[in-house]
Amino acid sequence: MTELLSIILAAGEGTRMKSATPKVLHPVGGMPIVGHVVRAARDAGSTTIGLVTGPRHQQIRDAVSALHPDVVHFEQTEAKGTAHAASMARELFAGATGYVAVVYGDHPLLRGVNFRAVLDRLDAGLDVAILGFEPRDPTGYGRFITDGDRLLAIREHKDATEAERRIGLCNACILAFRAEVFRDLIDEVGNDNAQGEYYLTDLVSLANAAGKKVGYGVAPENDVMGVNDRSQLARAEALFQQTRREDFMKAGVTLRDPDSVWFSWDTEIGRDVTIFPNVVFGPGVKIADNVEIRAFCDIEDVVIGEGASIGPFARIRGGAELGPNVHLGNFVEVKKSKIGAGTKAGHLSYLGDAEIGEKTNIGAGTITCNYDGVNKDKTVIGSNVFIGSNASLVAPITIGDGAYTASGSVITDDVPADAVAFGRARQENKPGYAPKLREKALAKKAAKGK
Amino acid sequence: MTELLSIILAAGEGTRMKSATPKVLHPVGGMPIVGHVVRAARDAGSTTIGLVTGPRHQQIRDAVSALHPDVVHFEQTEAKGTAHAASMARELFAGATGYVAVVYGDHPLLRGVNFRAVLDRLDAGLDVAILGFEPRDPTGYGRFITDGDRLLAIREHKDATEAERRIGLCNACILAFRAEVFRDLIDEVGNDNAQGEYYLTDLVSLANAAGKKVGYGVAPENDVMGVNDRSQLARAEALFQQTRREDFMKAGVTLRDPDSVWFSWDTEIGRDVTIFPNVVFGPGVKIADNVEIRAFCDIEDVVIGEGASIGPFARIRGGAELGPNVHLGNFVEVKKSKIGAGTKAGHLSYLGDAEIGEKTNIGAGTITCNYDGVNKDKTVIGSNVFIGSNASLVAPITIGDGAYTASGSVITDDVPADAVAFGRARQENKPGYAPKLREKALAKKAAKGK
Amino acid sequence: MTELLSIILAAGEGTRMKSATPKVLHPVGGMPIVGHVVRAARDAGSTTIGLVTGPRHQQIRDAVSALHPDVVHFEQTEAKGTAHAASMARELFAGATGYVAVVYGDHPLLRGVNFRAVLDRLDAGLDVAILGFEPRDPTGYGRFITDGDRLLAIREHKDATEAERRIGLCNACILAFRAEVFRDLIDEVGNDNAQGEYYLTDLVSLANAAGKKVGYGVAPENDVMGVNDRSQLARAEALFQQTRREDFMKAGVTLRDPDSVWFSWDTEIGRDVTIFPNVVFGPGVKIADNVEIRAFCDIEDVVIGEGASIGPFARIRGGAELGPNVHLGNFVEVKKSKIGAGTKAGHLSYLGDAEIGEKTNIGAGTITCNYDGVNKDKTVIGSNVFIGSNASLVAPITIGDGAYTASGSVITDDVPADAVAFGRARQENKPGYAPKLREKALAKKAAKGK
Repeated sequence: MTELLSIILAAGEGTRMKSATPKVLHPVGGMPIVGHVVRAARDAGSTTIGLVTGPRHQQIRDAVSALHPDVVHFEQTEAKGTAHAASMARELFAGATGYVAVVYGDHPLLRGVNFRAVLDRLDAGLDVAILGFEPRDPTGYGRFITDGDRLLAIREHKDATEAERRIGLCNACILAFRAEVFRDLIDEVGNDNAQGEYYLTDLVSLANAAGKKVGYGVAPENDVMGVNDRSQLARAEALFQQTRREDFMKAGVTLRDPDSVWFSWDTEIGRDVTIFPNVVFGPGVKIADNVEIRAFCDIEDVVIGEGASIGPFARIRGGAELGPNVHLGNFVEVKKSKIGAGTKAGHLSYLGDAEIGEKTNIGAGTITCNYDGVNKDKTVIGSNVFIGSNASLVAPITIGDGAYTASGSVITDDVPADAVAFGRARQENKPGYAPKLREKALAKKAAKGK
Repeated sequence: MTELLSIILAAGEGTRMKSATPKVLHPVGGMPIVGHVVRAARDAGSTTIGLVTGPRHQQIRDAVSALHPDVVHFEQTEAKGTAHAASMARELFAGATGYVAVVYGDHPLLRGVNFRAVLDRLDAGLDVAILGFEPRDPTGYGRFITDGDRLLAIREHKDATEAERRIGLCNACILAFRAEVFRDLIDEVGNDNAQGEYYLTDLVSLANAAGKKVGYGVAPENDVMGVNDRSQLARAEALFQQTRREDFMKAGVTLRDPDSVWFSWDTEIGRDVTIFPNVVFGPGVKIADNVEIRAFCDIEDVVIGEGASIGPFARIRGGAELGPNVHLGNFVEVKKSKIGAGTKAGHLSYLGDAEIGEKTNIGAGTITCNYDGVNKDKTVIGSNVFIGSNASLVAPITIGDGAYTASGSVITDDVPADAVAFGRARQENKPGYAPKLREKALAKKAAKGK
Repeated sequence: MTELLSIILAAGEGTRMKSATPKVLHPVGGMPIVGHVVRAARDAGSTTIGLVTGPRHQQIRDAVSALHPDVVHFEQTEAKGTAHAASMARELFAGATGYVAVVYGDHPLLRGVNFRAVLDRLDAGLDVAILGFEPRDPTGYGRFITDGDRLLAIREHKDATEAERRIGLCNACILAFRAEVFRDLIDEVGNDNAQGEYYLTDLVSLANAAGKKVGYGVAPENDVMGVNDRSQLARAEALFQQTRREDFMKAGVTLRDPDSVWFSWDTEIGRDVTIFPNVVFGPGVKIADNVEIRAFCDIEDVVIGEGASIGPFARIRGGAELGPNVHLGNFVEVKKSKIGAGTKAGHLSYLGDAEIGEKTNIGAGTITCNYDGVNKDKTVIGSNVFIGSNASLVAPITIGDGAYTASGSVITDDVPADAVAFGRARQENKPGYAPKLREKALAKKAAKGK
């Protein structure tokens, strides 16, 4: 495959988002918008990727570097238009062979295949190929002025004649060039326009004037939607989710109510998994076959083993590993814990920084007291253990295989295997005393009333 | 602005609701339907508002008085039609100058601007102006018989000819008059019709017959939808929510999945707030900037400070105040409590009638025991306190700054600042005893089986 | 009414489901698809019902027998087509008088009235009547070749001419016959086709050739949707839910957001019940009048008494009975328990295998410790009892009327009526000790850092 340099433009301010967070860092499917664009560029076979951001965009550079360390960063210090932004990456295109694709960074649903739509045209002999689409409502978009397969110019909406405005084919978000053509023409772009900016789209006329072969590819509208405000962000998220839901159903996952399940970009799910309504997946979830996830679960950063049964009302996070046939029931939180096959925690528990063996029963209301205000300590529980209800397990602590802790106990010391641990007071009844308590309470109320 | 008397009609029984609650008291966005109409009338600049209800409607009068004490109430003891209902407010219109608007009380999406659509026509010189709309399906609505800008009559659907039924412009829910015109004509309305009732819409023909200038204004269909059954109630709620969601997104709030967030009429939200899917806001919520609300939260009657992080699975109610950067985590309920900046309650806790300082850590499973069966008592916790997990804090109680309570403790007495409080039994292990317990349990099962 | 034998075909493998579970066992509204078809056949007045399944379908036979013990089972050991499948039920149709209806088993939304659409045609004198429908997109369906009211043949899509493909009326899922006509013709069906299978639809041409009167009935498209993959399963579920929601709203139930409430096929709800957003009903729920169910509840297998108030965040299951005016609040789970009138459990509790009297208060954080690792034991609590917060009630145990248990107690022995039970350690304060604990924790952290 021909070498491909992709230059992603993300220097815009995105003021319509009304946010202190740069536009392209707002997440879709749990990944920043610009992360999706980098991924698409990579999927398209980019050999080098450059990212142009603005002067106040260190946050973007950090986020992208964390996801894709090999992206090369450039700063556009003045907002002088898209051609000027692309020229910031001169260091990369100066010596580029093959193709150069310039891509807008605020298109979270972009896919590798959308790059192909224009790169294929270059493969077929064109010098320049621009990605177009046919929006339901073209108002505001630059129109493609074509002559058959040739693209003559891109006319901004505000400069277009009535006739031109009736054109349905509009500019999307990828401009692809043979590297030498891009290099020759990028500095020819002028700023003789109302805004005094250098527009990338002017390269189309320039290339035509230079006798280059200029054409276009077409993308589905949804793939190339840009995000400029929070409503469009919500719409991008909705389209993203719709695609994920359809994909999972095709692969053999039952979604009782698809519209109420939210996936992350990296969610992995096996076959014959049933997901009830109202489940939210954060990043980092892998689910094996035959798992059942009941309603109202919030799940992130966990590997779930085959046959596990989760929820309703379960919350998992922080790096967890659940073995086969684990059961987590209602109002149970698991954080950064490893839980062995067949172990059950059915009700009202918090398991944090724990390592639990197989076939252990965690009673209702169990709390791992893993935090002393400064440190997080580990709770280690063996296999075939019975933790009685309402236990407080004060970490660091180890409870051996087959041990048993009495209900309502505070366990502060290690429990050997097969031992029974008590950590609770003995009960005392005061016969006939309840009416006196009630009288006292009523008297107190009466006193308050006065 | 000209004086405006608004007479709201809410005497109908609403039998299609199949409810013991009067129709106009069913809530939309957390406010009774009639409350929305009063608010719209107020927004339109009403100087006086009268409400006509039926004989079994004390509940409506109480609810409206609680929201709007200055509304004047009238009772229509017999169901003799809308004109008869409006005439109940004679005490108000007898001396009215300016305009009189008669409004149907079952229109929860009505806005001040809908009043303006007819009041502007009176300002422009008309004597009578009726609010119309163009429903997708006009079946059942009274048709506007017009001659250019003039409104000649309102023809009930059942009395309309085939040709008249093809008219798209129909009667909505506001009839506006110059006060003297209304006063002169209201008693002229007759009841010579199949139902033997006095119809307000007859005022249109009467006004024309008296040589008055009669015209109309137009409202969007959604604004003037009436609620007659629970499906329409659900639809009104959906439209209400849609508007709120759009407004919040425009203002810089991120809604991951807008359709799964439900607002109240009075919800206030700052900028750069992110709301995950599935959040329900009851009345009385104010949220500052940079707050994150995760999935599955039920939040009402609380002020939330800047930078707070709430949920997933949090429930707040009953008058609460959360300082900046407070964190409430999963399965945490806060009721009528004041929580200081940076304090965290991450898991499985109930904080009721509490006052908590800053940077305090509330351990998992903490319960404020605020109720003795009769009285609710206060729990006061200082700043920089560490409440160990699974604590029972028996109110009334005070825990001083910098204090520490051991995990699993029952705290019944005050804890001085910087003290450590223990309230738990010492642990005892019985080595090798667990297998015996298991044998006993199995024997018990076997015995049951026999 | 004429006798009716219904033969339900469920021998297909359903490979597009990509599931180890047979297709017709996937649930819609909490009931297996084939269960809906049996119910529809029963509602249509079937006197006998036969079910034809495949050799690996014991699971289907078991599930259907559990729901409908009188269904007669037949196995089709080789996949030789629908006519061959139907012929497996020879034992039933050999002596049948009246009508025979052959029905496809993968149509979860089928209703008794859809049978009537063809049975009425038999009543009117036809010999054969086939159920048709007009799909939005007929691609892939067998087309009805008609002559007025007569049905001449059913043409498979792939065998149809261009002209025939423009026919909108297609084969649905019920073929009805006079018993003797079915008996005479079923063995005439040949397998001279590409697949070498015996097709039921060939009976139409055969009946015409034999001079029989053949016609058709028509069903709404939604009623006769078949399920072949998980997307269609999700769509069937959505249509099922939509119908239930509309029905409940018509009957006087308020659904704040209908689209976020999921019913089971057997859910029963009284009048003036309000259901907030995000409520999931599993099978076996009956709710009396004036109940309020707040957001985020997961409810199955329970009878809920008048005026009860449930949630938010409540979970009920396993056979429960809640008396009038019971209140269950947030993060409360009730399993297989009977709770008396006016009793309240407002927060963070697990009540399993319990029997609780009237007007009892269950404190926040109460856990019934009902499981010893082997046996489930009962907790019996009387009326007017006050269970202090964070109680562990170790079953089997009985707490008498009017008794009181102190907050944070572990109750292991019975508590007599009107007694007060304590089961907690006395609190001890160590003044000034907290800073030392903090120092120790910080030192530990520092040591870890090294």
